[in-house]
Amino acid sequence: MSLTSTIAQTEPLIADKGSRRPIAVLGAGSWGTALALLVASKGLPVHLWARRPEHAEAMRAERQNLEYLPGARFPESLYPTADAEEALHQAQFAVVAVPSKALRETLARLPKASAYLSVIKGLHFTDHHLQRMSQVVEEVTGVTQVAALSGPNLAEEIARFLPATAVVAAKDPDFAQQVQQVFSGPSFRVYTSSDLIGVELGGALKNVIALAAGMVDGLKLGDNAKAALITRGLREIIKFGVAQGAKESTFMGLSGLGDLIATASSPLSRNRSAGERIVRGETLAHLEAQKSVVEGIYTVRALHAWDQATGADLPITEAVYRVIYLKSDPLEELSRLMGREAKPE
Amino acid sequence: MSLTSTIAQTEPLIADKGSRRPIAVLGAGSWGTALALLVASKGLPVHLWARRPEHAEAMRAERQNLEYLPGARFPESLYPTADAEEALHQAQFAVVAVPSKALRETLARLPKASAYLSVIKGLHFTDHHLQRMSQVVEEVTGVTQVAALSGPNLAEEIARFLPATAVVAAKDPDFAQQVQQVFSGPSFRVYTSSDLIGVELGGALKNVIALAAGMVDGLKLGDNAKAALITRGLREIIKFGVAQGAKESTFMGLSGLGDLIATASSPLSRNRSAGERIVRGETLAHLEAQKSVVEGIYTVRALHAWDQATGADLPITEAVYRVIYLKSDPLEELSRLMGREAKPE
Repeated sequence: MSLTSTIAQTEPLIADKGSRRPIAVLGAGSWGTALALLVASKGLPVHLWARRPEHAEAMRAERQNLEYLPGARFPESLYPTADAEEALHQAQFAVVAVPSKALRETLARLPKASAYLSVIKGLHFTDHHLQRMSQVVEEVTGVTQVAALSGPNLAEEIARFLPATAVVAAKDPDFAQQVQQVFSGPSFRVYTSSDLIGVELGGALKNVIALAAGMVDGLKLGDNAKAALITRGLREIIKFGVAQGAKESTFMGLSGLGDLIATASSPLSRNRSAGERIVRGETLAHLEAQKSVVEGIYTVRALHAWDQATGADLPITEAVYRVIYLKSDPLEELSRLMGREAKPE
Repeated sequence: MSLTSTIAQTEPLIADKGSRRPIAVLGAGSWGTALALLVASKGLPVHLWARRPEHAEAMRAERQNLEYLPGARFPESLYPTADAEEALHQAQFAVVAVPSKALRETLARLPKASAYLSVIKGLHFTDHHLQRMSQVVEEVTGVTQVAALSGPNLAEEIARFLPATAVVAAKDPDFAQQVQQVFSGPSFRVYTSSDLIGVELGGALKNVIALAAGMVDGLKLGDNAKAALITRGLREIIKFGVAQGAKESTFMGLSGLGDLIATASSPLSRNRSAGERIVRGETLAHLEAQKSVVEGIYTVRALHAWDQATGADLPITEAVYRVIYLKSDPLEELSRLMGREAKPE
């Protein structure tokens, strides 16, 4: 171990600001890869960990992720590997970018990092309570330095260095600032927040509303109906999130409304297009078998379980749940949503 | 004058709920025509007033508005006329659907109605103060029974009876309910509100944000950037609106966020597509000469004048103003917006 790495590992994290220690990105799907590209393009060393050795090898040979993000050339400082020891060695922090359903198992078998940044927009329901991804990370690793990054961030656009914004939230404001410095660049503006709950819930719940928005698209109900649905969706997210301890203002920001708008309207959005395909008859089994995970189908199940347990009022979530898991008719479900009586707005 | 009309005109408005007295729609553009269709499709008599006699005549002959809303067949109870006396005779209320710039002059020369519903999404700057459309109606006519209807309402979709929602606001809750009853139908759900200021300002200001969103589209900056812009746009609308006396919650609803989303994202939106065309070099003169009015180009001018007079902070509005009126470069203006420092969100 070199002198610098020894120093870096014994100094507190705050001293690492602006350090050249590498960033480890765990998960080489489109989002993990796009974030790795973003940081590596600034000249910072990035270790991109892929689960499958052949995937890491292909990325090393082709200098791109042909499987999940074709066309985006890797900068020199981006190093793909399937060796987790190597990926995490001397890392400032590990970016966790695996599908939510693989999170627990992946973290349990990898070496620990000193700090984590979750970029997963998912939600678990375990033992009668909901868990945000940062809570799962903390529980499995025992590491308390965990942040979350979220915002209107379609990976394909980030990889093309189109302008985008995001919010990083952490209990420790110094760690939030460290992450902000690592990711900020000419095309990517990062804001800090102390509302970890709000940032994570906004990212997870908007996928459910995007599924519903995709159904509106699939049924060709028009932009008026879709705008009304998104508006009510934000209200549903806020009501739920505030009850969970989040700040309302967070949902009005980039990681709430911003992400909701991008996900519910962009043709690039996986969750929105999944909603469209469900209307055309695509089954749950097909959706689950997709290469790129549609997180919303798991989030809606977790929320439904929570709703059943607590009697929360989540009309859009429940409608999406019934369409996906109970094969309820999407047009009937959406009409019922439209017809909810609430005379004074 | 018949007996029924005499009774109807001497009874207070509240007694008219459910009455068969006609609705007068002043202005036969796409929005006025769509609303006329909506009400007439319920079997209620609607008089659609067009400024030009030849336009009224063509609509009577063709049973559609070929010029502004081709393809939508008129129900029997929809009667187009250029005779304002005839249009307003016995009317429950008059729907004002003329372009904002023609409002004053039009109302001044037409006979008075007993009550008005403004559906114009515009704003005036006169004598150093801003005027909402309902204020102009009240000032010009002296009639105080004035409501405003607003929401995510692309006229082409309304005319196809695709599902949509709107909010009607009035100082008098009975009048708001009367309007709600007249417009509510299987495809159109109307909510009432007492926040006239918020409903009107949301409808007017979103056109400016939609112009900016159209510029993002025209420059191909992507859905991440556009979502961030819309999110900040809502914040700008709220800050301005609350200072004007509106309720924040109104902007979070259908007439605020809902309308903003529809207008900023739909290909059918005139203001959004105008932003796109401005980027491609279309001039102000061209925009002003369009058959269908782009209200945002007047609203942004009114807001700019107010901003100059009061020193308000309206960064998106000012950027749109500079692009349209000072021929500033849209990419530079949008980059400057992206770059505004605001570390904690």
